[in-house]
Order: sequence, then C-alpha cells, then structure tokens
Amino acid sequence: MTATAQLDIDIATQTVEPSTKSTLRTAIAGVTGYAGAELARLLLSHPRLKNTPPMLLGRAGADASAAPVTLTSLHPQLSHLPHADELTLVPFDFEALAREKIDILFLATPHDEARSWAPVALKHGIRVIDLSAAWRLQEDANRAIYKLTDPDPAIGAALQREAVYGSPELHGPQIKTARLVANPGCYATSIILALAPLVRANVLDLDRGIISDSKSGVSGAGKSPTANTHFMHAADNLSVYAPFGHRHTGEMLEQLSLDNSQFQFTPHLLPIPRGIMSTVYAKLSQPSTTAAVQEIFDTFYADAPMVRVRTSPMLPEIQHVVRSSFCDIGFQLAPDKQRLLVVSCLDNLLKGAASQAVQNMNLMAGFHEADGLQ
Amino acid sequence: MTATAQLDIDIATQTVEPSTKSTLRTAIAGVTGYAGAELARLLLSHPRLKNTPPMLLGRAGADASAAPVTLTSLHPQLSHLPHADELTLVPFDFEALAREKIDILFLATPHDEARSWAPVALKHGIRVIDLSAAWRLQEDANRAIYKLTDPDPAIGAALQREAVYGSPELHGPQIKTARLVANPGCYATSIILALAPLVRANVLDLDRGIISDSKSGVSGAGKSPTANTHFMHAADNLSVYAPFGHRHTGEMLEQLSLDNSQFQFTPHLLPIPRGIMSTVYAKLSQPSTTAAVQEIFDTFYADAPMVRVRTSPMLPEIQHVVRSSFCDIGFQLAPDKQRLLVVSCLDNLLKGAASQAVQNMNLMAGFHEADGLQ
Amino acid sequence: MTATAQLDIDIATQTVEPSTKSTLRTAIAGVTGYAGAELARLLLSHPRLKNTPPMLLGRAGADASAAPVTLTSLHPQLSHLPHADELTLVPFDFEALAREKIDILFLATPHDEARSWAPVALKHGIRVIDLSAAWRLQEDANRAIYKLTDPDPAIGAALQREAVYGSPELHGPQIKTARLVANPGCYATSIILALAPLVRANVLDLDRGIISDSKSGVSGAGKSPTANTHFMHAADNLSVYAPFGHRHTGEMLEQLSLDNSQFQFTPHLLPIPRGIMSTVYAKLSQPSTTAAVQEIFDTFYADAPMVRVRTSPMLPEIQHVVRSSFCDIGFQLAPDKQRLLVVSCLDNLLKGAASQAVQNMNLMAGFHEADGLQ
Amino acid sequence: MTATAQLDIDIATQTVEPSTKSTLRTAIAGVTGYAGAELARLLLSHPRLKNTPPMLLGRAGADASAAPVTLTSLHPQLSHLPHADELTLVPFDFEALAREKIDILFLATPHDEARSWAPVALKHGIRVIDLSAAWRLQEDANRAIYKLTDPDPAIGAALQREAVYGSPELHGPQIKTARLVANPGCYATSIILALAPLVRANVLDLDRGIISDSKSGVSGAGKSPTANTHFMHAADNLSVYAPFGHRHTGEMLEQLSLDNSQFQFTPHLLPIPRGIMSTVYAKLSQPSTTAAVQEIFDTFYADAPMVRVRTSPMLPEIQHVVRSSFCDIGFQLAPDKQRLLVVSCLDNLLKGAASQAVQNMNLMAGFHEADGLQ
Repeated sequence: MTATAQLDIDIATQTVEPSTKSTLRTAIAGVTGYAGAELARLLLSHPRLKNTPPMLLGRAGADASAAPVTLTSLHPQLSHLPHADELTLVPFDFEALAREKIDILFLATPHDEARSWAPVALKHGIRVIDLSAAWRLQEDANRAIYKLTDPDPAIGAALQREAVYGSPELHGPQIKTARLVANPGCYATSIILALAPLVRANVLDLDRGIISDSKSGVSGAGKSPTANTHFMHAADNLSVYAPFGHRHTGEMLEQLSLDNSQFQFTPHLLPIPRGIMSTVYAKLSQPSTTAAVQEIFDTFYADAPMVRVRTSPMLPEIQHVVRSSFCDIGFQLAPDKQRLLVVSCLDNLLKGAASQAVQNMNLMAGFHEADGLQ
Repeated sequence: MTATAQLDIDIATQTVEPSTKSTLRTAIAGVTGYAGAELARLLLSHPRLKNTPPMLLGRAGADASAAPVTLTSLHPQLSHLPHADELTLVPFDFEALAREKIDILFLATPHDEARSWAPVALKHGIRVIDLSAAWRLQEDANRAIYKLTDPDPAIGAALQREAVYGSPELHGPQIKTARLVANPGCYATSIILALAPLVRANVLDLDRGIISDSKSGVSGAGKSPTANTHFMHAADNLSVYAPFGHRHTGEMLEQLSLDNSQFQFTPHLLPIPRGIMSTVYAKLSQPSTTAAVQEIFDTFYADAPMVRVRTSPMLPEIQHVVRSSFCDIGFQLAPDKQRLLVVSCLDNLLKGAASQAVQNMNLMAGFHEADGLQ
Repeated sequence: MTATAQLDIDIATQTVEPSTKSTLRTAIAGVTGYAGAELARLLLSHPRLKNTPPMLLGRAGADASAAPVTLTSLHPQLSHLPHADELTLVPFDFEALAREKIDILFLATPHDEARSWAPVALKHGIRVIDLSAAWRLQEDANRAIYKLTDPDPAIGAALQREAVYGSPELHGPQIKTARLVANPGCYATSIILALAPLVRANVLDLDRGIISDSKSGVSGAGKSPTANTHFMHAADNLSVYAPFGHRHTGEMLEQLSLDNSQFQFTPHLLPIPRGIMSTVYAKLSQPSTTAAVQEIFDTFYADAPMVRVRTSPMLPEIQHVVRSSFCDIGFQLAPDKQRLLVVSCLDNLLKGAASQAVQNMNLMAGFHEADGLQ
Repeated sequence: MTATAQLDIDIATQTVEPSTKSTLRTAIAGVTGYAGAELARLLLSHPRLKNTPPMLLGRAGADASAAPVTLTSLHPQLSHLPHADELTLVPFDFEALAREKIDILFLATPHDEARSWAPVALKHGIRVIDLSAAWRLQEDANRAIYKLTDPDPAIGAALQREAVYGSPELHGPQIKTARLVANPGCYATSIILALAPLVRANVLDLDRGIISDSKSGVSGAGKSPTANTHFMHAADNLSVYAPFGHRHTGEMLEQLSLDNSQFQFTPHLLPIPRGIMSTVYAKLSQPSTTAAVQEIFDTFYADAPMVRVRTSPMLPEIQHVVRSSFCDIGFQLAPDKQRLLVVSCLDNLLKGAASQAVQNMNLMAGFHEADGLQ
C-alpha cells in the first residue's frame, strides 16, 4: 500500500449527509477471519442490500491470473446465501473501489493496515467502518499499546479527532453523519453498555472502584492457530489472561470517563466458541431500590433496539445471545441496597463486532438501526 | 433411621487419639454420587489401605434378598481398581458398622441424614468425616439455610461446637484428634485458601470489600438430572446463579472472620465437567510489593502438601488441577501496588470434596497428610 | 381430549388444493420442546407470515385463570422476534382452532397424542404436519415399536394410508395436496437423503449390505433431563445406543424399499448440542467412476433447494449445517471404484425436524419451498 | 545427528534377555508432546522406578549454557509428581545415554528421527521403544506413506525384520526379548484388539468386508496448532478425514492378515480432548450365538490385564476409558446371528500410546505387565 503517498484528504470535511441513495454499495477488507465472515453473512442477507452484494477485498497486488478465491471455499457454511456462490476476492485497490462506487468500506484488517488505509478511503470519498482498534482511542497513552504509526501524522491526528466511536447506543447521532467510524471492541461493548447508564446517571461511588470480571469464547482470540486456541488448551479449561493490562481497557476508560484507579478488568478464556459475559461489580453512592435502578436501565435503552434490558432479578446467560445481534443486560441489587451486580452478555462476533458494524452502517445509510439484525 | 432414639453419646469426650492401629477400616455412605465415586476410588488405591477396601453403604433397610448392587455397575470406570469387583452395597446399619470395627465413616449423604447419623456413629465409637454441609457452620444464622433439625437439640448443639471444619491447611492439629470433621464445600475451599493467608496476615483493607467471582464445572451441581445440568443448557453457555445468597457463603465468612458487608461471592456455571476457579479481588491496606505478597503465601503454605503456590505473575488454570488433589493459588498485584488479584483453582470433586476428605482421614489416622493423593 | 368421540371425518377426501389464501394461519402444539421452539422461531420470521404469528397451544383444559405462559419465558432467546413478546400459550381446543380459522396445525407432541388428535384436526378441516412418528410408517410391524392405539381403528388405518411421508425431496407433489403430512425423523432424513439417489438409480449391491454409522448431538434426545442427557454423561464422551433396534429404522427401510438384512443402522450420542452426521457405507453393483456417482447425486437434487450436494472429494462437516436448514451430502469412491462412502450432515432440529416441517408447509401453502429457510 | 556415520551394529544379535537388573534406567526423547508428557507421568509414578526418574532428552546440540527447560514448565500439571521439579531437558547425545547406563530409550519423536536413531541406540546397547510409526510396518508398500529413508539401507532392512510390533496382547513373548519395539498407532490398537480374536478364530466372512468407523479426540492430531486443531474448528463439530487412505491402515492389515479389499477404515475427528471409539462391522461366516462370540473374546483376553472385555450387550463408552490404560471391548450380535457389531474404546494417549509403551517396557524389563498402569 503506497497509495497514501500523496494524501491530500480534506480534513475540514468531517461529516457527510446520511445517504439517500437507493442502493448502498459496500466492500469488506478482511473477510477471511471470523468477524469478516459474519459481516459477509449479514450483508448478504440484509433486506436493504438484496441486489448489491459486498465487494470482497483480498491482498493488494494479488496475482490476478491466479485462481480466484471464492467466499464459499473460505466459509462453506455461507454457501446458501443469495449471491454467495458468485463472490470471489478481488485484489485490494482503491481505484477499483472508486470505480465500483463503493459507499462504505468495512475494514476487518490488522490495526496498522486500518490506520494506513482509512485516510485513503476517505480521500476517495468512501466512508469507513473500521473493526480494528486503529481509530477507537482519543488519548495517545491509550493508543500506544497498538504501536500504530501514521503515514502523515497531521492527517492521522486530525482523523483521529474526527473518528466516531461506533457505539450506536452512546453516539447514534454522530454516527449518522460520520465519515470514519471506529467499531468498538467486543469486551468494551459488553462493559460499556453495562455501565454507561449508571455512570451517566451519576449514581455510582466511583472511588470504591468498579470491577469487570469478563469471560469470552475462543473466537475472540482470532482465527490464527496458536497454543492458546488449540482445542487441547481451550477445552475443559478456564484461564485468566492479561489482567491489569488488556488493550481494550482504554476504550472503556475513555467512553465511561473513568481512570485506572476506578476501574479494573480481568478477561478469562471460556471453553466455548462464541459469547462474552461481563460480570460487573459496582457500588451505588447511596442505598437505592431495585425499581430505581431498573428505571435507569430501561430509560437509557428505551430506544435501543439491539439492547435487551432484563427485569431484575433475571440475569442474562450466554446462550440467550449467541448467534444473535443483541446485548442482554440484567442486574441485582445486594440486600444492603448499595452493592450492584450487573451482568452483560453478547456474541463477540456479532454485537461485539460484525452486527455492531452493520448497525453503524444502518445509521450511516439512513436505514432503520436494526435492519438485517433481527 | 430410628437409631437416634436413645442417644446417650458422651458429649464430654470431644477428641480421640490419632489412630495407631495397623489397619484402618473405613465405610462410605453415599457412594452413588460423583464425590462418593471419587472417594471410593481414592480409598481403593490408597497405599495404606491396600487390603482393607471400604464398606459401601446403601439404603438402610434395603431388601437383603435383592440382587446386590456392585460398585462397578454404578461406576464402570472403577472396574480396574483392586477389590473393586468384589464390592457391593450393604444396607446402612450401625450394628454392622460396629461389628466390622469401622474406624471412620464418610458421609456423602444429604445434609439432614448427615445431621441425624453423625451422633449415632459417634455413640458407636466411629469417627465421622461428613462431606455434606450439616456440621460446617457454627452460627445458627448461617446454618439456617439448610433447614436442619436435630433429633436431640442439646446433643446437636454440643456436637456442633465439637465439630472441626475440615480444612487441613487451617485446622490440621484439631483434625488429628477430632471425632467429627465437617468437610468444607468446594467453592468455600477455593476461596478460603485464596484469602486465609492475607486475612491472617492482616494486610487487607476489609472495608473496601472483597469480591470472589467464582466459576464451577457442572459436577458441582450433583448427579440428579435437572434442567440446569441438561447438556443443552450447560454446554456452550455461562450463567450466574445464586448471587448474594449462595449457601456456601456462611463457611467463607466464618472461616475468614468476615461479615457480609465485607465480602461478596458470585458463582457461575461453567460448561465443563469438573474444576473451580475463583477470581478474587481484594485491596491491601497500604501499597506493598509482589515479593512481600508472595512471601505471605509461600510462608503460609510452606508445609501444606496439597496447595501449590505459583510464583507471580503465573496464574493457575483449571486444566492444571483437574483430576488432581491440589489447590493451585497465584496472584498479581496491580500497578498501584494495592489492588490484588488472587486466582485459585481446584477440582471440585477432589480437593473440593473427596481428596480433602481423604486428607482429613490421613490426619485422623496418623498417616502422612498426602498419602494416596499424589 | 375427548373430542374424538364422535369422529365422522370424511376419509374419502384425501387431498386438498394447495392454499391460495392471502394469509395462512398456523398453530403449534408442543412449543415447549427444542423442535417446537425452532418451529416457532421459523414461523415468526417467515416472510410470508409476517402479520400472522402462530397460535401456540398448551395443555387442553388448562386453567384459563392461571397466569399465561409466554413464549419468551419458555425460550428467552426468541424475545427479539416480531410478535414474540405478545405470544402466550392457549389451551388446546379444536373449537378455538376452528374459530381462529387455522389452516395448518403442527403437532410437536408425543406420538400417541399425535395419533389421536390428527383425525380430529382433519375433521375440523385443519391440515396437519405431525413432527412425531405417529403417522410415518405404513407397515404395522414397523409401527408396533411406538405402541400406538387408534380411537377408531378404521379411521386410523384409512388416515395412515392417506398420510404422506414429509420428505419434500422424495414426495413433493403429494405433499402439496396432502391433508396429513408425517414429518420424517432426524436420523431417517439424513440417511434417506444420502441413499435415495443411489437406490432409485439402482446402482447398489443391496445384498452386500448397507451400513449407516450415525452420530447425533444431544438435542436429539429431547428436553427432559435424564441420566443420558446430563452434561456429565454426555460431555467428553461418545456412546452407542440402540444398535440393531433404533425406532427410526422402519422409516429408512420403507422409504428406501430395503429389508432388514440389507441395512444396518448404529446411532451414537455426540457431545455437541446439535447436528447429525451419517457415515454411510455401500457398494456399487459394478465398478464406476466418481463422475458418474456425482452425476447421480447432482441430478437427483437439481431442484432441491434444501440439499447441498458437495463435489467429491469434499465431504460435509457438522459445522457446515448447524443452525441451517440444509442437508449437506458428499461422497468418495474407494480406489476399487466400487465401495462408496457417503456422508450426510444436517441439523437435527431443523432439516431433521422444524425446517423440514416448514418446508412441507411451504409446499402445502403454495409458497416457494425454501421460503423462510435461508 | 551424525552419530549414524560409522554404524556397525550387530544385526545378528536380535534379542536380549529380559532385564534382571535391580534398577531400570529409562530416557525419553520427545517429552514436549502429549504422548511424551503422559509417558513422563507414567514413568515418574511407576512403582518399580521410584528412585530412577527418566532422563529427558531435548534437541541434540542444544546450547548447554542456555537456561534449562524444566519438565514442569512444559507441563505444569505434572508438578506434583516425585522428582518432577528436578527434571530438565538435556541435549540428545548417545554418549551421555551410555554414560548414564540407560537401558531403554523411548522415542516419541518424528518418524524419520526414530528411523535414524534406533540403530544407533541399539549399537550402544540401548533397547528402544519407538512411539512413532518408523518401525511398525514390514511391507515396504505400507511403509512408503511415511517416506522414510535409512542411513544404511541394509541395516534398516535387517532391523525392520527384527522389530517387534508392540502389541502385548498379540506379541507378548517376542516383546520380552526384543531390542526394538514398534509401539502401535492409536487407531490401530483400537481396531486390532477388536478384531484379532475373531480373525484368529477364523469365524469371519472376510470377503463380505470389515468396516471400522472410528472416532478420535483432538489430542490424536498432535500438539502443533493447526486449522484443524483450532478450538473453533474442532468444537461442536464432527468431520471425516483421510477416508480410504489413513496411514494407520497398513498396521491393521499386517497385524490382522487382511488385504485392502477386505477392510475399510474411516477416521473422524471428535470434539473431545481424548479417547477413541472404533465401531466395527463384520459378519460371521455362519450364524452363531452371543455366548459363542463372548467366549472367543473372553478366552483371547483371559490373561490380558489391560483389556477389559464387556459382557454383551454392554458396550463401552469413551468415558469409561479416558485417562485409564485400558482398552474396553464389547459387542452385540444382530438378530440374524451373523452380523456383528464390535465397539472398542481406549485413551489414544495411553493404551493408544504412552501406556502401551510402558506395558512393553514392563515386559522387556521382566516386571509385571500392568505395573504402574492401574
């Protein structure tokens, strides 16, 4: 990718009108991974995109004379979807994207590629939904963990300020007109959605500290075979990893306006394919009632079609959300009426990745937020 | 069971000398369950009990003319063990136990049976290791959750005071001479062993609150088929149950001298057969160092053969302990040098039940504490 | 159910015209089980039934004053579907079904209830798709295993002759006009679809014997908690059950025109929630080629939207079909060009139950066969 | 490894006396894998090897100044075993093996290393138990699949003739005096033990064809992370691999004196960590009785401590053998009294690898065959 060489993107143009085109054209870079496969599935079955399957982008500069890689050879389970059998990977090339009049480019690529490519896409007038972490973090200190470099630091900094964190429940209006949406991390989504109503309602004793004990299925670790994703390590096991230092922590702190002393996050690897549960511990500033807390959640998510608030004492289970696009949230208040247990579940590949990306696309395209997600 | 009718147990005699008999005779009531099966396995392969397999007790008053139930028909996987093929269940009868000169009776029975039978066993001069919760709790308020009744309340109260909580790492000397040992709960063991060194060293800020987010495999839910233990519910799932009210909580509070406001325990059902992980969150009263905390754990467990303290930052995983008799403990200190993450793993059927019972038997019999457990 | 008392069903009327009604009304008896839940899900999201959710039938004579049982309390994972939150179980009552102008009644009930109720439904002019085994078998000897009794034997016998085995790939035209469709068993579907093209092409050496070594996930064993469906038995295990005598065998023999000496079926319980694989061994009458066998499969299923024939040597895996409505079929020919390995996979709750029922409904209603199934 | 350069092994000396040394010294090459870990565990807890832990061999020529790799860093679950904490990998070096007076060298290495190293070991007077496939096959055509080359073809051929196939139930007497034992494959063991009694009793209709539909847990695929051993592929799945061409087939054919036209083997990958089930289909030459077939199995294995023959109709399950050293075998005869279903289960890492190797060592050392295996 040297396409960034003469980058003269208009960094003054920070928003666009929601699309009113009759057809929306999409492209996916990174369809080989788990999130990419789910994204392809969702777009292929999206009721508003019936006749416009996404372009699927392979490596830039791939030998055009080689046998084409078909979507269904990568993901045989998709072979029943409309158009799936016709789709093959085409070499990543911004000119081709422009020729095809692509409106929205999904990046399900490594962080550094997403950091380099997003500016080029914007320059070509293509809006970007980035599923990597490249654009999620406003604070340099939080972003440092990803070791990103910008081809043009000034443009990188400007686009970073422009980028919208793609949590529709928190930033819906900004997403509608955004050029660059940073789709949230899977753990981050589960925790932010569990805590945002309480933090915004200002009812928590933040100095007491909030703890999220989170557990994720193995797909969260990606498709590359590693010692940790080997069946023999993951099955019949549970293990903690990256306590005090998981790289999704920065997103949670920024979105919830917390600092490190107020928040602690411990991820665990669950022996299941998909699903995240975050068991969140917090304390109210003063004693309250179950009804009052319920009201906070119900109100906050009254217009959020992809969050299902459960009525206390019901708590969500991972099975309720696997292969769905929902985040389920439930809570219980301790007998002391102050300690609060909030449980949040979602499918890490869907509401934690691909479905949230489609939800963002829906907002950007002027579709209904839940189109293609139920 | 009406044998308690004329109970005149000598409640003044509260301890016995550790056995010096050349052979120890044991019996198990409740061998049909998972913990009972593990107990049978451990006793049959115990190096000090080679020629004295345990008596296996079935229902009192069972029809002696019925076809005998063999151990290996209940648990085919035990059929290779010495004597296993000879063993059949005999009807529970204290006279028979006395005739066979049983020294130690293991009760892996429902709580109320254990509450009724233990006094009768003691009256017959038989020491008891009770795997139920019947005798674990000194405080009436904590015990109330089990709805136990005593045939003779005065004797019940006296024996309750006499009963020793069977945590060898905490009460080893008392266990050696005990007549009645209350084998700890599986969750309780994992949490008490994670916290006891810190609580006894008086280094925790108790008012900040301690949280144990614990996860157990399905065998912890028992052998009876229920909606929750159905494969379709447990597999590929994670669910919270009994937050703020799990009945093992009382054990933890009593053994750690904590009150409810200082401690919170949330159990989860893991989609694995065996194993418990407790992820414990605590805060030191003042900043310390990893080395100092390591020293606390290492010293506390220096002579504890069944606890493996890991060197920070190594944390235990469930796979390290499944089918072993160990409790593995590890920790990490936050960058603020005050927040502490302690992770404790054990096999709920072994160190959480049967192995701990055998460890107690070893102490009571004057054997080496780890005999038959490595 | 005494509604069968004065049964005067017109047994001369054996077929109906495919429906041309603008709206189709459906009802489900037995929505509490796994197949019933999938059926409710499929009907609620069926594009042709958008505004006509199914009636959900509970026990006949249930106390109408009791709190209503909601669909989403039974199956929380369905709560996002349109209309799902409004649906409650209503007492089974044929008058109510008639009043509501139900066109098609799905029976996901025990076999004997399905045997008793189907005639009454037909009498009320309601077509029936029965997911039980009550009406699948034409030969009394094969049906004997279910110990069914008919309220009126003459009517039972007549309806049995009328009933159409609901395999759309084999009996599509008859299904379109059928009043009573017997939805096939899950194992039976996987095996019949693997073998029917070969048997009908008359290329197998039947005397050599055909063997199906089949494996099913635990949902095939039903929702009732039993020793076999307990997580501790099913997980990390594989077991054979009912060799030489599984009750689905009769369906296979009748549909494939084989006798017992020519066919052998061994079911295994797999440690997974859903999915069936049948590994089928057969021998061609004379040596052939991969291309010729491929042609047989491809031709047979050319117009079958719910069967995906793989191109040899590709073989299906269970993951390719789980949560889909497809049956995937692949094969390999031995180096001797005569021995044939056919592998067939489907989701036992979908193509093996609920999806096949909807496929039958589509045919009966004049919809496209695959509506709502992709 | 250039130690084979001047190989002048005495190929006339083909057997040795069973050892009568008071202590046996062993070494393991390849302890990093799953079978190697189990082998280390078995040798460390072997009652006849209490004070002589095995030497653990790492790469030849490894830098002696590098930090030593400890056994317990490779396999934390072994850390409780006697001597485990002292053991580190030492560079592979035949001089060192000789200096340490190693009697038996276990090779759990790649096939080609085992082919090169075994002659050198024998030259140094060290007996070899090879867990790879290097020496299992007498027929060149069967061995070709492994693409082995011999440093000295004449010696390779001579040692191949000398090598004893390490199935104690078939070749016990030869194993006792063997210098080079080729430990069988896991699938091969399960199938050979299921069929050998019937084949030797000459009761099968071989021309009808024998089929083994076999299923293995994921540990059989080795420790290297691959797309197939990734949790996301293996979990909740079942897949066929290598039908008509699995490389273990040659062992089965040779040991059972069958040819390819008489035998067919289809392996499947099960979503469990450990365990193999072979479901074997055969036909008796003429009708017989369950009692007669039972007698054939019971007699054949009367003195085989590591095979448990179940009484028909009981069939083994994988759970009965996981983590045990047994092969369990059961059968059922069809109602036609001729078709036979034989089910064989073992733990692929134990009776299918490490335990069988120890069983062979026991025979070679003059120990009891089952020492350390129960």
